[in-house]
Amino acid sequence: MQTQQIQVLQSGTITSPKGFLAGATYAGLKTFHEEKLDLGVLYSESPCVVAGMFTTNRIIAAPLVLNKEHLQKRPSAQALIANSGCANACVGPQGLADAKEMASLAAKKLSLKPEDVMVASTGIIGVELPMALIRRGVQRIEMSKDNGHLLARAIMTTDRRPKEAGVSLEVDGKVVAIGGVSKGAGMIHPNMATMLGFLTTDAAVEPAFLHQALKEAVDDSYNMITVDGDTSTNDMALIFANGQAGNRPLTATSKDAEAFRKALLTVCIRLAKEIARDGEGSDKIIQVTVEGAASGEEARQAARTIAGSTLVKTAVHGNDPNWGRVVAALGRSGVRVEDTKLSLYINEICTMDGGMPIAFYKDAAVQSMKEPEIFIRVSLGLGVHKAVAWGCDMTEEYVRFNSEYTT
Amino acid sequence: MQTQQIQVLQSGTITSPKGFLAGATYAGLKTFHEEKLDLGVLYSESPCVVAGMFTTNRIIAAPLVLNKEHLQKRPSAQALIANSGCANACVGPQGLADAKEMASLAAKKLSLKPEDVMVASTGIIGVELPMALIRRGVQRIEMSKDNGHLLARAIMTTDRRPKEAGVSLEVDGKVVAIGGVSKGAGMIHPNMATMLGFLTTDAAVEPAFLHQALKEAVDDSYNMITVDGDTSTNDMALIFANGQAGNRPLTATSKDAEAFRKALLTVCIRLAKEIARDGEGSDKIIQVTVEGAASGEEARQAARTIAGSTLVKTAVHGNDPNWGRVVAALGRSGVRVEDTKLSLYINEICTMDGGMPIAFYKDAAVQSMKEPEIFIRVSLGLGVHKAVAWGCDMTEEYVRFNSEYTT
Repeated sequence: MQTQQIQVLQSGTITSPKGFLAGATYAGLKTFHEEKLDLGVLYSESPCVVAGMFTTNRIIAAPLVLNKEHLQKRPSAQALIANSGCANACVGPQGLADAKEMASLAAKKLSLKPEDVMVASTGIIGVELPMALIRRGVQRIEMSKDNGHLLARAIMTTDRRPKEAGVSLEVDGKVVAIGGVSKGAGMIHPNMATMLGFLTTDAAVEPAFLHQALKEAVDDSYNMITVDGDTSTNDMALIFANGQAGNRPLTATSKDAEAFRKALLTVCIRLAKEIARDGEGSDKIIQVTVEGAASGEEARQAARTIAGSTLVKTAVHGNDPNWGRVVAALGRSGVRVEDTKLSLYINEICTMDGGMPIAFYKDAAVQSMKEPEIFIRVSLGLGVHKAVAWGCDMTEEYVRFNSEYTT
Repeated sequence: MQTQQIQVLQSGTITSPKGFLAGATYAGLKTFHEEKLDLGVLYSESPCVVAGMFTTNRIIAAPLVLNKEHLQKRPSAQALIANSGCANACVGPQGLADAKEMASLAAKKLSLKPEDVMVASTGIIGVELPMALIRRGVQRIEMSKDNGHLLARAIMTTDRRPKEAGVSLEVDGKVVAIGGVSKGAGMIHPNMATMLGFLTTDAAVEPAFLHQALKEAVDDSYNMITVDGDTSTNDMALIFANGQAGNRPLTATSKDAEAFRKALLTVCIRLAKEIARDGEGSDKIIQVTVEGAASGEEARQAARTIAGSTLVKTAVHGNDPNWGRVVAALGRSGVRVEDTKLSLYINEICTMDGGMPIAFYKDAAVQSMKEPEIFIRVSLGLGVHKAVAWGCDMTEEYVRFNSEYTT
């Protein structure tokens, strides 16, 4: 199956796949943001196979502890409750008690068991969840097919825009959809940054393949974005597959497994790029391609290091084709480099070839960098491996914002 | 021997030890800085044992290639020539030819052989050294015992202040001195950041011990500072020991070996802290102590990660005791952490104890953070290992500066 058969859905979101409803309300947790939704629920009309990926941070917020335990026991659930404003992290044993109560509150509302509900929180670290507000808030939430957009807004923290995406494709002769929402604008770095990604599909998918497909998609999307180098205690990606499309359950050897993988990756990349584009204070998204690497991991490592370099980010902010900073970041990334084989392009203007600087027309390069999307391409000339990472520029606004706001 | 016998020298600098002369001039390379010295020479009246530490960046500037080859052949030299304004990095084969010519120019001036001269450059990457200016400039340099201060200024790039230090101590019954100068304000990160450190001593020191003592001192000083996470192609630390104090050559088993080690570390820490304090756009130095770590390397790793966290740096800029960001940075540093054993102090105000948040008096903590030196202490409760790292706050000025200036 070809990727061109993957259709991007207009206004695609987490409730685009069949059988998913969502809702959200303002419980009173998010006191610092003009967006006044802060508590949301996702519900599937039928049980779902579920897979999850979690932060690599050694300090892990309570909801993640609960979800990881859950998925170790059984890879299924039917709902999700998520709040913004408070991360439910670093608050001792009360954290897990509160996460469990959030699951119970959603279960009661939806006539499910608590063990059918996944939980997520994002916001300030080190203060307890105001459960009294959450108890009242849950009751007000109205579930609807149209409310995926509200859930996208309810998980925003410092995000300027909600992040939603959806695609459809054919699997086993049936039309299936994959949709999702994300949040994240700061504390964003490879390996599950302060990032929530919730995905749904109406495809029927075997648990092992769903986990594998999610891991691969996350590795090439969410794990390839960086805003400020800081990962969080609360990052996670979850996918719910309810099987309502009626296909035979997908496994790794299904004819359409590859199409499903690509479609899931498409949704994840769209959501991840929206996070990079919405980086706190940023004006521009930076796409870094590293090709010709000696290994896939080195390509990834180099691309992420360049995309995350403070000096590259500030140069992009200033429309400065300062390729020396790209080379310095590449050099410290730890990957194998032979300087005589190294070439470098900024917006496809060659600035270094075979290790030698090229006398490029700087004014034109500066002009090209005024676009909202900047492309940096590094060719290592050592092998066939390639990777793409996304970051954003760093602005005075980023510093102002993070100096004034207690995350 | 006790450390209290180490005396800090008033106005100590690279020419404080006996037999060292220095000089500097404006050759015309440094076009962007009000400090108009950009070419300097260090000379010892007698041959020196020399040791060096070099950047871990995979892209290495030509002077470092030359010096590394030099020290592999023989650990001795008698002079150093250094320029700022141009890094002599990423310019192909011409780089090594120019570095060799710089050594020859200094050798001719000082009646030495080219192989008696070490070479250093710092500044913009990717443009060739204007050798015509350097040829003329070298001739103008006047060598003097008093001109260590000029050499300190000649290696400045974005530095706001020259960085100099010196101590004296007794070795083998003789008074010996150790002095040094450094530069560096941006592209500063552990493992030899954009940093030059030149050290001298009139102690007689065996080559193997000099190398070992330098490595240890650099590991606990220059390698524990971070400004912006970017390491450079040009970082190095060199020490010249000319033996004019008349002591029997120091080895690792000498009675005063430990005193020499401590004195060298004292000089290196003073210079390294000046680099952190002078971080581009920064107002404050941040000292991060990690104690109770399960291993020494983990203590170092955790301290450096916290000191380098963009979110910690912006919080310090805003006088915000946002300890959640410290915990998040600690968690992603990769070191072993048990959250129930974790305690955290900001300016010795406890904000977390045994993994539980403490309801501290926030206004007082904010007030304490208005000082120019901020202390963050993390106690892991897992072992006996400890490390200290230094960083600086991140300001709007940092972004403005690095958006406008081609390094």
